[in-house]
Amino acid sequence: MIVILKKGTPRVKIEEMIRSLDKMDIKVQEIQGVHECVLGLIGDTSAIDPEDLRSMDIVAQVKRIQEPYKKANRKFHPENTVVDVCGRKIGDGHFQVIAGPCSVESREQMVAVSHAVKASGAGLMRGGAFKPRTSPYAFQGLRQEGLELLLEAKKASGMPIVTEIMDASHLPLFDDVDVIQVGARNMQNFELLKTLGKIDKPILLKRGLASTIDEFLMSAEYIMAGGNSKVILCERGIRTFETATRNTLDISAIPILKKRSHLPVIVDPSHAAGIRWMVEPLSMAAIAAGADGLIIEVHNNPEKALCDGAQSLTPEDFDTLMGKVRSAVTFFGKSMD
Amino acid sequence: MIVILKKGTPRVKIEEMIRSLDKMDIKVQEIQGVHECVLGLIGDTSAIDPEDLRSMDIVAQVKRIQEPYKKANRKFHPENTVVDVCGRKIGDGHFQVIAGPCSVESREQMVAVSHAVKASGAGLMRGGAFKPRTSPYAFQGLRQEGLELLLEAKKASGMPIVTEIMDASHLPLFDDVDVIQVGARNMQNFELLKTLGKIDKPILLKRGLASTIDEFLMSAEYIMAGGNSKVILCERGIRTFETATRNTLDISAIPILKKRSHLPVIVDPSHAAGIRWMVEPLSMAAIAAGADGLIIEVHNNPEKALCDGAQSLTPEDFDTLMGKVRSAVTFFGKSMD
Amino acid sequence: MIVILKKGTPRVKIEEMIRSLDKMDIKVQEIQGVHECVLGLIGDTSAIDPEDLRSMDIVAQVKRIQEPYKKANRKFHPENTVVDVCGRKIGDGHFQVIAGPCSVESREQMVAVSHAVKASGAGLMRGGAFKPRTSPYAFQGLRQEGLELLLEAKKASGMPIVTEIMDASHLPLFDDVDVIQVGARNMQNFELLKTLGKIDKPILLKRGLASTIDEFLMSAEYIMAGGNSKVILCERGIRTFETATRNTLDISAIPILKKRSHLPVIVDPSHAAGIRWMVEPLSMAAIAAGADGLIIEVHNNPEKALCDGAQSLTPEDFDTLMGKVRSAVTFFGKSMD
Amino acid sequence: MIVILKKGTPRVKIEEMIRSLDKMDIKVQEIQGVHECVLGLIGDTSAIDPEDLRSMDIVAQVKRIQEPYKKANRKFHPENTVVDVCGRKIGDGHFQVIAGPCSVESREQMVAVSHAVKASGAGLMRGGAFKPRTSPYAFQGLRQEGLELLLEAKKASGMPIVTEIMDASHLPLFDDVDVIQVGARNMQNFELLKTLGKIDKPILLKRGLASTIDEFLMSAEYIMAGGNSKVILCERGIRTFETATRNTLDISAIPILKKRSHLPVIVDPSHAAGIRWMVEPLSMAAIAAGADGLIIEVHNNPEKALCDGAQSLTPEDFDTLMGKVRSAVTFFGKSMD
Repeated sequence: MIVILKKGTPRVKIEEMIRSLDKMDIKVQEIQGVHECVLGLIGDTSAIDPEDLRSMDIVAQVKRIQEPYKKANRKFHPENTVVDVCGRKIGDGHFQVIAGPCSVESREQMVAVSHAVKASGAGLMRGGAFKPRTSPYAFQGLRQEGLELLLEAKKASGMPIVTEIMDASHLPLFDDVDVIQVGARNMQNFELLKTLGKIDKPILLKRGLASTIDEFLMSAEYIMAGGNSKVILCERGIRTFETATRNTLDISAIPILKKRSHLPVIVDPSHAAGIRWMVEPLSMAAIAAGADGLIIEVHNNPEKALCDGAQSLTPEDFDTLMGKVRSAVTFFGKSMD
Repeated sequence: MIVILKKGTPRVKIEEMIRSLDKMDIKVQEIQGVHECVLGLIGDTSAIDPEDLRSMDIVAQVKRIQEPYKKANRKFHPENTVVDVCGRKIGDGHFQVIAGPCSVESREQMVAVSHAVKASGAGLMRGGAFKPRTSPYAFQGLRQEGLELLLEAKKASGMPIVTEIMDASHLPLFDDVDVIQVGARNMQNFELLKTLGKIDKPILLKRGLASTIDEFLMSAEYIMAGGNSKVILCERGIRTFETATRNTLDISAIPILKKRSHLPVIVDPSHAAGIRWMVEPLSMAAIAAGADGLIIEVHNNPEKALCDGAQSLTPEDFDTLMGKVRSAVTFFGKSMD
Repeated sequence: MIVILKKGTPRVKIEEMIRSLDKMDIKVQEIQGVHECVLGLIGDTSAIDPEDLRSMDIVAQVKRIQEPYKKANRKFHPENTVVDVCGRKIGDGHFQVIAGPCSVESREQMVAVSHAVKASGAGLMRGGAFKPRTSPYAFQGLRQEGLELLLEAKKASGMPIVTEIMDASHLPLFDDVDVIQVGARNMQNFELLKTLGKIDKPILLKRGLASTIDEFLMSAEYIMAGGNSKVILCERGIRTFETATRNTLDISAIPILKKRSHLPVIVDPSHAAGIRWMVEPLSMAAIAAGADGLIIEVHNNPEKALCDGAQSLTPEDFDTLMGKVRSAVTFFGKSMD
Repeated sequence: MIVILKKGTPRVKIEEMIRSLDKMDIKVQEIQGVHECVLGLIGDTSAIDPEDLRSMDIVAQVKRIQEPYKKANRKFHPENTVVDVCGRKIGDGHFQVIAGPCSVESREQMVAVSHAVKASGAGLMRGGAFKPRTSPYAFQGLRQEGLELLLEAKKASGMPIVTEIMDASHLPLFDDVDVIQVGARNMQNFELLKTLGKIDKPILLKRGLASTIDEFLMSAEYIMAGGNSKVILCERGIRTFETATRNTLDISAIPILKKRSHLPVIVDPSHAAGIRWMVEPLSMAAIAAGADGLIIEVHNNPEKALCDGAQSLTPEDFDTLMGKVRSAVTFFGKSMD
């Protein structure tokens, strides 16, 4: 950590600061410039909040050099993490497609979609029981009943299921869920993250709409710090000035996340674009950029979908897409088995 | 609501759509353009999710005309709402300053700060017991113990208190809290909003970092839809490309929120800027733009603050600021009594 | 175009508006809703500026339905445009790689790089003679001398050249340049665009840092409206809140631009990321998403590059990349001949 | 400047770097941390482009400590600059209002508006002759004829005029213009800035839509580096995700620009909001935050305005606003004489 002091800081103040850092086992080396004095802090600075230093009257700027995340950091864990969901592996060359409707609506729907996506080669099934909706007047999901329908579909199809949790208190309902999803709006719901850190189940963590890569990794770190290292990162588009798409898929996030972290990274092309016909080009781009999987909305009747129908594929469209996905995954050196 | 159909949509498909809308008591008027066919939907369209329509193959675009919020909407509630907190009124010409430390640290601190800010004219006291922190390794607040210290300071100073809730399950601990704050990161924690809609206590709702004005009002609507109409909106800066400030204070949000809604609007200049010396100019700008109050961080020893010291004022600085605030509030036609 | 009138607009005002639109050969159809009155404007509304209507006291909202661009619009020109540069075709299945240094520095450099990139399979050579730099104290390019070195390298290597123009008055110097580039900062330098509309030479138009897709296409329209239809669009990253990359490559822009326009779309992965090792994954993503070409920075000595060395590849790295590019272009069904 | 080297950089490479910096009269001090080696560069680093260093294989990060602007920098010029336009002073306590139509349309219009705004207390008159428009099919301004009408209105009213230049080649037409405006889209049209640096006339420089504070000051530096120190900075709103306003007025930019630079700062509330009724609250906020002036659109018939009518005030509205502006300017300690 580098601390840049204000011009004209009295010697006595600098000495005081050095002594207090010394108590935290941080050694300080000074650089006396023409205009500024700079302190280099040597040691484990992860316990220091840069804001604490910034608040001091003598401090002009503070620059962190080491990343603040440890368990999610590739530096301390160079090998790729593989998350295993009932035998389906994600990461380190293993590619998985998670597919299913935006929200669980009925037994018929879940049975139809789960068989269809399985037949097309999806490894996991998704479906929303608890739905975060901007409007309190919009359909909020079938909630507990939706979870039950999902579990029935799991039994029928044999596919592991992924579904979103919206509140830590709902956790007991998720006992038989295979992967728990944390939505973009809850990426910094820290109480929820802490709760999920204490369980032994894969967590699919979606990036927040306006979260930086480092904040995203810090949220993964919250889960991992609690002891749960089975975290799958999911890029799903960020909020920008552009209005032609619902969100802007940050394709660069894939190589950066994989450089900084060992965790698997998947992409949600359905939410990123918000438009059905863009799911294919964005899926191809995600595979090409190094993603470890995709999560795609499929609905047996998108025109009647209770939410987000505009971005859902029909099972037929999904089947066509999967042919291209399988071929591209192989071309780029990963496997879907 | 306006629905623009794709070029060449067959007549039979249009008729089908009109019939299904008719069942929802929505009348449809057609405009046949040269290139496009447009449908005007007449009636209460708040029950219709534009996404449902957008998902239909024949639909090119959907434009909402009416705002989707009702209880928060000034159109249906033209008079300004006044939120009364133990006799301190906020809104409709009543201006309040909420002051106190970022986080509750000790009894001594809370007693010292509460007496100081009261003496300077603050109407309410703030202090964080549960602290949302980007890093799991940073100080997370004194939590339950912090709430107890806050309540002691309330008893000692006689000032009502404002403090943040981070999880619905903590609600029983907030029985004696006067105003419950929902932080920016939880603005779309819908389960929490629903829980707070069922209680009879003022809620200070902070705008999310990347939330639009309409999403902000929809989150207020979540609370109000549950029956709790005591919502105070708080603009605290949005995330943009600019790095000179921690966030970009959206000063325009004040007149727009007051135009669209009857709820009181306060501003948090401390978090918006993240820099101590900017609290004054941003406070003045907020008052000038029509804000109903300010929430300001004050710490008796900002250099030792456990979080966000860089943006906290000393009690002396706060006292000076309050002289200017009082004078500006009067100049712009509001009162602080 | 849809015009939504304010509640309570008097009949006489509406009639007046209808009459004035009638004079412009625009027919109006009214929809009288419960709360609002909506006018549908039928006819060629491209001559109407929505702002003109918005300024009227009786108007609440104006929504354009037709895109405001015509010559760049795929609706009126369904076939893909192919831009031919000295026999190198770009668009409609023809993929080209443009490579070379950020700025032209010396004869030796240009000769070395041009031979290297040609040998690796680049179709065109790039090099900056006029350099837009944030600081007036930074190297501004060799300017006229740089252009001369570029032309020498063209003669030596036989490769067509692409270089940036920064002011309309420099145009006479560009007589022997094959493709004129308009940089991101000049995307809305309308006087420059008009000048380039009058010449018969391909223009490589880069998207502005904060320009929407529609603004980008309107800038292409400026050039095309003048008579020059040889426009190549270039996505090079947009400005967002994220700081991990220099810009955020908007990968979705590729399919959207190709849907809305018939013009070829290329991608600049070097500037989008600003980091050398990210050029490969972003190049692969661009090809996968449907791009018609790439423009890549290559420097024979990136460590000594006078500008943007951090994002330049060595000729060896470029050669390796080109192997992968060629293979991916073929896989995704385009050709590089 | 701080240079952070990559882990494991060999000693010989570090020595080489130190020697090459030494040739530029830059002394280097090393900090050897546990994980990283950091170099502190001591001396005048303004000639060094951080990108040059970043491109070196041994360099992990580069952090600038000193601001890269000098002539615009308050550190080297502590007193406020006052720009004098025909006796109207702007800066250092002198507040000016610039008013007039978005675009010059006719002699009658200019005469009417100029007399009106003068009577209401505006110090300078604005009007666009060359208009930057997103669409090539929109009205582009009366251009040379517009300039002539402006100059006639100047003669008639005795008010100095402010008008926008769009291309360096038009400069001869601006001989009798008092203040030349550079629009947001041309803020980084560096060739234009250089040309304006060589003349002796005040320049009103508008901030680009997506330009940082530092980029804004670097563009001012371009003009000043040429010898023209009469630069007036203008904040006019930045582009963000919010759609409720045309742009987001960055109110914090005012105190930051005034902290970092000695140049006067004015605000354009008309373009920032794009909505007529918001001009007043944003004007008040700008004054409260420390602005040195305002530039406001006034049209004698906003409903017939050829551009941007939606944000133009009538002369009557402007007169009412000016009463409030005068009072607020006095309240906040500046003068309008």
